[in-house]
Amino acid sequence: MARLTKKRSQKTGLPAGSLVHIGERKTDKTTIKVISYNQEGFQEIGIEQLENHVASMGDGSVTRININGIHEKDVIENIGKLFSLHPLLLEDIMNTDQRPKMEEHDEYLFIVMKMLSSEGMPNLIKDEQIAIVFGHGFLISFQESEVDEFRPVVEMIKNGRGRIKRMGTDYLAYSLMDVVVDNYFDVMERLGEEIEGLESELMRNPKQETLRSIHRLKREMIFVRRSIWPLREVVGDMERRGSALINESTSIYLRDIYDHIIHVIDTTETFRDIIASMIDIYLSSVSNKMNEIMKVLTIIATIFIPLTWIVGIYGMNFDYMPELRAKIGYPIVMAIMVVIGLLMLLYFKRKKWF
Amino acid sequence: MARLTKKRSQKTGLPAGSLVHIGERKTDKTTIKVISYNQEGFQEIGIEQLENHVASMGDGSVTRININGIHEKDVIENIGKLFSLHPLLLEDIMNTDQRPKMEEHDEYLFIVMKMLSSEGMPNLIKDEQIAIVFGHGFLISFQESEVDEFRPVVEMIKNGRGRIKRMGTDYLAYSLMDVVVDNYFDVMERLGEEIEGLESELMRNPKQETLRSIHRLKREMIFVRRSIWPLREVVGDMERRGSALINESTSIYLRDIYDHIIHVIDTTETFRDIIASMIDIYLSSVSNKMNEIMKVLTIIATIFIPLTWIVGIYGMNFDYMPELRAKIGYPIVMAIMVVIGLLMLLYFKRKKWF
Amino acid sequence: MARLTKKRSQKTGLPAGSLVHIGERKTDKTTIKVISYNQEGFQEIGIEQLENHVASMGDGSVTRININGIHEKDVIENIGKLFSLHPLLLEDIMNTDQRPKMEEHDEYLFIVMKMLSSEGMPNLIKDEQIAIVFGHGFLISFQESEVDEFRPVVEMIKNGRGRIKRMGTDYLAYSLMDVVVDNYFDVMERLGEEIEGLESELMRNPKQETLRSIHRLKREMIFVRRSIWPLREVVGDMERRGSALINESTSIYLRDIYDHIIHVIDTTETFRDIIASMIDIYLSSVSNKMNEIMKVLTIIATIFIPLTWIVGIYGMNFDYMPELRAKIGYPIVMAIMVVIGLLMLLYFKRKKWF
Amino acid sequence: MARLTKKRSQKTGLPAGSLVHIGERKTDKTTIKVISYNQEGFQEIGIEQLENHVASMGDGSVTRININGIHEKDVIENIGKLFSLHPLLLEDIMNTDQRPKMEEHDEYLFIVMKMLSSEGMPNLIKDEQIAIVFGHGFLISFQESEVDEFRPVVEMIKNGRGRIKRMGTDYLAYSLMDVVVDNYFDVMERLGEEIEGLESELMRNPKQETLRSIHRLKREMIFVRRSIWPLREVVGDMERRGSALINESTSIYLRDIYDHIIHVIDTTETFRDIIASMIDIYLSSVSNKMNEIMKVLTIIATIFIPLTWIVGIYGMNFDYMPELRAKIGYPIVMAIMVVIGLLMLLYFKRKKWF
Amino acid sequence: MARLTKKRSQKTGLPAGSLVHIGERKTDKTTIKVISYNQEGFQEIGIEQLENHVASMGDGSVTRININGIHEKDVIENIGKLFSLHPLLLEDIMNTDQRPKMEEHDEYLFIVMKMLSSEGMPNLIKDEQIAIVFGHGFLISFQESEVDEFRPVVEMIKNGRGRIKRMGTDYLAYSLMDVVVDNYFDVMERLGEEIEGLESELMRNPKQETLRSIHRLKREMIFVRRSIWPLREVVGDMERRGSALINESTSIYLRDIYDHIIHVIDTTETFRDIIASMIDIYLSSVSNKMNEIMKVLTIIATIFIPLTWIVGIYGMNFDYMPELRAKIGYPIVMAIMVVIGLLMLLYFKRKKWF
Repeated sequence: MARLTKKRSQKTGLPAGSLVHIGERKTDKTTIKVISYNQEGFQEIGIEQLENHVASMGDGSVTRININGIHEKDVIENIGKLFSLHPLLLEDIMNTDQRPKMEEHDEYLFIVMKMLSSEGMPNLIKDEQIAIVFGHGFLISFQESEVDEFRPVVEMIKNGRGRIKRMGTDYLAYSLMDVVVDNYFDVMERLGEEIEGLESELMRNPKQETLRSIHRLKREMIFVRRSIWPLREVVGDMERRGSALINESTSIYLRDIYDHIIHVIDTTETFRDIIASMIDIYLSSVSNKMNEIMKVLTIIATIFIPLTWIVGIYGMNFDYMPELRAKIGYPIVMAIMVVIGLLMLLYFKRKKWF
Repeated sequence: MARLTKKRSQKTGLPAGSLVHIGERKTDKTTIKVISYNQEGFQEIGIEQLENHVASMGDGSVTRININGIHEKDVIENIGKLFSLHPLLLEDIMNTDQRPKMEEHDEYLFIVMKMLSSEGMPNLIKDEQIAIVFGHGFLISFQESEVDEFRPVVEMIKNGRGRIKRMGTDYLAYSLMDVVVDNYFDVMERLGEEIEGLESELMRNPKQETLRSIHRLKREMIFVRRSIWPLREVVGDMERRGSALINESTSIYLRDIYDHIIHVIDTTETFRDIIASMIDIYLSSVSNKMNEIMKVLTIIATIFIPLTWIVGIYGMNFDYMPELRAKIGYPIVMAIMVVIGLLMLLYFKRKKWF
Repeated sequence: MARLTKKRSQKTGLPAGSLVHIGERKTDKTTIKVISYNQEGFQEIGIEQLENHVASMGDGSVTRININGIHEKDVIENIGKLFSLHPLLLEDIMNTDQRPKMEEHDEYLFIVMKMLSSEGMPNLIKDEQIAIVFGHGFLISFQESEVDEFRPVVEMIKNGRGRIKRMGTDYLAYSLMDVVVDNYFDVMERLGEEIEGLESELMRNPKQETLRSIHRLKREMIFVRRSIWPLREVVGDMERRGSALINESTSIYLRDIYDHIIHVIDTTETFRDIIASMIDIYLSSVSNKMNEIMKVLTIIATIFIPLTWIVGIYGMNFDYMPELRAKIGYPIVMAIMVVIGLLMLLYFKRKKWF
Repeated sequence: MARLTKKRSQKTGLPAGSLVHIGERKTDKTTIKVISYNQEGFQEIGIEQLENHVASMGDGSVTRININGIHEKDVIENIGKLFSLHPLLLEDIMNTDQRPKMEEHDEYLFIVMKMLSSEGMPNLIKDEQIAIVFGHGFLISFQESEVDEFRPVVEMIKNGRGRIKRMGTDYLAYSLMDVVVDNYFDVMERLGEEIEGLESELMRNPKQETLRSIHRLKREMIFVRRSIWPLREVVGDMERRGSALINESTSIYLRDIYDHIIHVIDTTETFRDIIASMIDIYLSSVSNKMNEIMKVLTIIATIFIPLTWIVGIYGMNFDYMPELRAKIGYPIVMAIMVVIGLLMLLYFKRKKWF
Repeated sequence: MARLTKKRSQKTGLPAGSLVHIGERKTDKTTIKVISYNQEGFQEIGIEQLENHVASMGDGSVTRININGIHEKDVIENIGKLFSLHPLLLEDIMNTDQRPKMEEHDEYLFIVMKMLSSEGMPNLIKDEQIAIVFGHGFLISFQESEVDEFRPVVEMIKNGRGRIKRMGTDYLAYSLMDVVVDNYFDVMERLGEEIEGLESELMRNPKQETLRSIHRLKREMIFVRRSIWPLREVVGDMERRGSALINESTSIYLRDIYDHIIHVIDTTETFRDIIASMIDIYLSSVSNKMNEIMKVLTIIATIFIPLTWIVGIYGMNFDYMPELRAKIGYPIVMAIMVVIGLLMLLYFKRKKWF
C-alpha cells in the first residue's frame, strides 16, 4: 500500500502556481505522442511539428496529445504555453496527490481521475493519476507512465471502428474515462474474489492471520473508495451542467458512465458491509473457541479435583482411620469416585457442554 | 448466493455499445411472444409478422413484446433496429449486472428492475433482471428466462378484467412493475419467517450455527437491499418528472407503487435493526455461558484446592506430628474440612453465583 | 409483538384496486355511525338514510361518518361509491399493512395513521390503523375496531365545547389526528417508565433476563418509530402544501401537531440512545463479574497450589529425607507455608485485586 | 436527572388550547414585573396599571413584562387576553415539556428556549423553560421561576449601558437569548472539566464506578443536546426569514448568536466522541486486567501442577520403587523439579508474559 | 492537548460587543507592522503614521496591517475605530475560542481560521487563531503571536515574485489562507507518519501503551477535524457568493484552496477509518493472547490433574491394595500415565490447539 500521505512539504512557501512534481517518479523519460484525426483519416504528428500543427488546428479534426511522464517541469510548461492553460491547472497536473475533480475553464475542461490496478493475490491496489484537458479540437492526457489500457481507444481511431471518429473531443474524453471506469470493475472483481476466499477460510479455520488479511482488505477498500467516490460528482456535473464543450449526443454516454460509477460505488459499499460482517464472525468464532477451551478445562478440573481430594484423605497418616483397615475400603472408595465422576459427566451433559 | 460480482472482464477494451451477454445463461432458447390489444379485443402475432405489424402500428392499440432470454446478440440487435433503440440501451439489456434504473429517451422510457425470488428455507434469494422499454403503442420486456409471475397480467388483458385494456402502455408498464414490487413483499414475508425462526432458536439454544445463519441472513438482506433501494428513485422520478409517455391518470398508480417500495425498504431497515440485535443477543449469551462455566470451575476449584492441601498436610511423613497420633484427629480434620466447604458455599451463595 | 410482516400473499396476481382485507380481524361486525353538525346543532343519522343525506349535503354542515371494522368488502365498496373514492384508496383502507401517508386527491384528502396502545407492564405495543378521508362537508374515518380515544371529540361536538363546531372538516380531521398524536405521548410515557425500571434493575442486579428485556424494548422502539416517523412528513406536507381543503386558520393547529410529532420522534431517539447505553452497561458489568470470578479463582488457586506441592514433597516416601526425622520439621514447614500464603495475599492486595 | 418524560396524561381528551400546567412547580407565587423604557429613560409599572399602560403603548417606548411562574392558569389567560395571544401559544407556555422552537404570528414572534444550569460536581444538568413573546413595543418573557442570569440585562437598561436602550424589542429579545446561549458555554465548561477528571481517573485506576460516571455523563450529554440542537434552527430561521419585527441592524447580532450555538453544538459533538473513546478505553483496560489475572493463574498453575504430580509419584506406596531406596533419590527429584520450574519460567519469559 | 473548552465565564453578564481577551496569552507585547504596496513598489509604514496613511488610502495601492498579539483591548479598539469595524467583530478577534467562519459586512469581509502546528513525535497539535479583515485597499490580519509561515508572502511582495503585487487585497487574503491550508498538509503528513509507526508497533507487539497512543491520536484527529471542517464552508461561500470584494480572477484561486481543504478533510476521514481499524486489531489481538494463555493453562492442567489423581490413588494407605504389592505395579502405573498424557496431547493436537 502506498504511504498514507504524499510528501508535499517541498512546496511549502512557494507561490500558487509553482510547478513541483509531487509523487513517485514512475517513468524515466517523458514521451509525447500526437495524433490528429477526422472522419476521413488520421495522421501521426512528430513533436517537432506540434507547434505548427496547433497553430493550424480548427478544421474540424481532433488532435490528441498523450503525455506519459509528468515529472519534467519544462515539458508541462511548454504544453501549458502552447494551449494557454492556467498555471494552477499545470500545478495540479504535476501533483499526483490530487482528488478526482473536474474544472470548467472558459476554453477547456480539466478532469483528474485515478486509474486503479491490482497486482498479485493478496491484492495490492495501485493508483495512477490521469489528467485530461480538452477543448475545441484538442485533447491532452497526462499520465504518470504509459497506460496500456488506453491502447484500444487509439486502435479504434486508427481502425475507424465505433463512433469515435465521427464524434468530437468530448466523445474522446468520454472514451478515456470509460476505460478508467471499466477498469474499476476489474479491480472490484479481484477484490470480490479475495473476499470470497477469505470468507471460506473464515468458515473452515479462522486464524489471527485471517483477521489481518481482512483488515488489510478493509484498508484497500478505503483507498479504492477514496479514488472512486469523487468521480461520481465529476461525471454527474459534466452531464448535468451542460458545458458548451459537450455535445447533446455525448451526454447519454456520460450518463452511462455515471451509472457505472454508481454501480461500482454500490459494490464498494456492499464489500464494506461484508467485510464488517467478516470481522464480527471472526471475533465471535474466537470467543467461541475460548468457550470450548474453558469447557474442556472445567470438565476435567471439576471432575478430578474433588476426586484428588478423596484420594488425599486416604493418604493421610492418622493412626486411627478404621476405613483403611477394612478389606473392602479400597474398592468402595474407587466405586464412589467412579460414581461421582459419572454424575458430574451427567451434569455437564445435561448442561449441553458437550 | 450469487457471486459478489459478475464477470465483466470479457468486455474490457470494447467500444461503448458493444453487445456482450454478461451473467448466467438461464434459458436455452430465446422465445418471443407478441400480443396486440385495444379496448375491443386482442390478438397474438407471430414473430414472422412482427416487422409488418410494427410498420402498421399507431392505431391506438398496444403491442406487447415479451422476450425471454437475452443472451442472443442477434435477437436483441434486431429488436433494437426495429424500434430504433439506442445501442447503449441494448448493451444494458444484455448485461445482467445492472443497477435498477430509469432512462428517459425521446421516444421511449427504459426501465431496469430486479425480480427477486427466494427458494427453500434457509432462504436463498435469487434475482432476475427485467428490462422494459415502452413508447407510444408498444412495450417490450426483456427477461433472462420466462417469468411466471407476469402471466396474470396477460390473463387480465385476455379476459378484459380490470382497467388494463382501456389504458395505454404506461399502465401496462405499471402493471409489470407492480408484479415485481408485489413479489418483494413475498420475499420479505419469507425472510421475516426465517428471522422469527432464528429468534426463537436464539432464545432456546444459541449455537455457533445460529450465528452463521444470522450472518447469512444479513448478507441476503444486503443483497435484497441493493436490488430494491434504487427502484425507489426510479419510480419517484417517473411519477414526478412527468414524461409525455405517462398519462395523468397512471400517475396515481405509480404513487401507489412508490408507497409500496418505501414500505418494503422500511421493512428491510427494520430487519437490519433486528438482525443487528440478534447478533448482540447471541454474543452476550455466549459471554454469559462463559460466565456460567467459569463459575462452576471456580466454585469447585476454590472449595477443593484448599481442602486438598489440608489432607496433603496429614499425608506428610514427619516423624513428629502429634495430631496424627490422636484418636480424634481424623474426625476433627474431616469436620474442619466440611465446615470450610460449607463456608465457601455460603460465600458463593451470598455473591449470587448460583 | 405483532408478526414482522403481515400476510399479503393472498393478493398476489390480483389487479390493482382489488379489495382484500389484510391484517387481523379485530371486530366481528362492522358498525357505522353518522352524525351531521353545524354551528347551530347536530343530528345523528341512521345508516339507511345515509344515501339521501349525502345527496343533500352541502349546506355548510359537516357530516362525520365513523366506520368501525374494515374487513367487509361490501361496506367499503358502498362507501367508496357514495363518495366516489378512488379504488386504490379503498384498497389501502382494507390493507392494515400501510405506512402512514397522506394523499391529495382532487375532491378529498386521504390520511393513514397508526394509533398505538401499550398494554401491561412489560409494555406490549399494539397498533391500529386509522384511515381518514375528508372533503368539503364530510369526513369519513375507518378504524379496525371501535377506538375509545375518539369519544371526547364526539362529546365536544355534542356539547358544543371548543372551536370544533364553528370550524370545518379540516379542523375535525385535525382533532382526530391530535388524539392519535397525544396518544403517542402516553405510549412514550409508559416506555419511559419501563426504561427507568430496567435502568435501576441494571444498577442493582443485572441478569441475562434484564438484557432480554432491554432487547425487547429496543424492538418495541423500532416498531414505534416505524409507526410515528412517516407521520412527520404527512403533517408537514399538509401544513406546507396548503390544499384548498385546509383553511388558513387550521394551519396553525397543524403546525402544533407537527411540533408534537417532532417532540415524540426526539423522545424515541433519546430512548434509542439510552437503550444502547444500557446494553453497553450490561455487557461491561458482565465482563466485570467475570473478572471478579477469575480473581477469586486465581487468588485461591495461586495460594494453595504451591502449598499443596510443598505438603506433597513431605508426603514422598524416600528413605532418606532428613527433614522428616527432625522434631522441628513439621512446625517449620507449616510456618513456611503460612508465610508464603501471606506474601501472596500481600501481592494480590498491592495489585488491588481485593 | 429529570424523568425521561413529563407527565402529560392529564391533558388526554381535552380540546386543543386547554391551559394545563405540565411540569414541576418551581415557584410558589407568580410574580410579574413590568418596566417601560425608551432612549430617554425608563419606568417601573405596577401590575394594577398594566392594563392602562398597554392601551396607551405605541409611542416608541418598549414595555418589558417579566412573568416568573407559569402554573397559574388565570395569570397566563389574562396576559393572553391583554395582548391577544393565540390559545395554542398560551397552552405551550404552560407546558414545560416543549422543544425549543420559534413561531411567527402576524403581530408577534413566539420563542421557546431551555435555560440550562449545572449543579454540583458530578454535574447535574437542570433545565428551565423560557418563553418569549415580542411584538411592536412589547416583550413578555415567561419563566418557571426567577432567573438570576437575566438581571444584568435589566441593569443595562436601567444604567443606559450598551446599545440596548436605543434599540427595539427585537434587540431586547436578542439580549435575553444571548444570556441563555452564553449560559450553555458555562455548562459545557463544567462538563468539560468533569470529562477531564474522568479521563485522568481512567488512566490511573479505572473502576466499574468510573464507567458508571461516564455513562451518566453520556446521558447528560443526550439531555443537553436535546435542549440546544433545535435552537440552531430557531435562530437560523429568525436571521434568514427576516420578519418585519426584526430590524436589519439586529440581524448581525442574531448571526453572532447563531455562530455561538453552532460552536456549542460542535463542542457537544466533540464531547460525544471523547466519551465514546473513554468507554472503549475502559473496556479494553478491563480486558487487559483480565489478561493479567489469567497470566498469574496460568503461570502458577502450570508450574506447580506438574511438580505436584511428580511429588505425588514418590508418595505412592508401591513396595518396589527402587528410587525411594536410593540415598540420592530425594535431592535428585528436588533438583529435577527446580529445573522444570525454571524451564517453565523461561518459557513464559520468552512469551513475554511478564 | 489544549483544554477541552476555553474559559469564557469572565464574559458572563457583559453586553454584546464587550472586548475581553479569551484564551492563553501567547506573546508579551503586541507588535504592529504595516506595509503598503502597488505594482510599482512597496513601503513600510510606522505605526505613528498609520492614521494619516489610512486617511490618504485609496490610490489603488494595498495596505497590509499585521497585528501580532490580540490581548490588548486598546490596540484592537483603535484599529477598530480607524477602519470602522463592527464591535461584534472586534469581540470575535479577541476571543480565540472561535469556530472558523466568514462574515460579509458592507465594507469588508471578516475571516477567522485556525493555523495548526504539530510539535514533537508523539504529535501534539496546537492551534493559533488567525483573523483577517479586508476591504478595498486594506487587509488587516490578527494573530495570537508572530506566525513565521506568513513570512514568504511578505517576501514575495517585497521581491515582486508571483502575481501578488499585481492583484488586490482579495489575492493577498487568498495568499494568507493558502499558507494556512498548506500547513494542514504538513500536519496531516506528520500524523500519517505517526499512524504508520503505530501500525507496525501493532503488528509486532501490541501493548496497552499502544492503545493509549492510538486513542490519543484519535483525539488529536477530533481536534484537527474541528478546526478544518468549517473552513470548507467558509471558502466555498467566498467562491460561490461572489462578494464585490472578490475579483473574478481570484475566484479560481479560491476554488483551488477549496479543493485542497476537501482533500485534507478526505484525509482526516481516511485516518479516522484507519484508527478505528487499529483499535479493532488491538482488541482482537488482546483476546487472541488471552486464548493462547488459556490454552497453555488448559493443556497443562488437563493432562496433569487426572495423573495427579492416579498417583494419589496409590498414595492411599489402605491395608489391602493388591496392586501395591505387585513388583510390576509401579512401572505399569507409570506407563498408563504416559499413555494417558500422550492421548491427551493427541486430542489437543487434533483440535489444533498447538
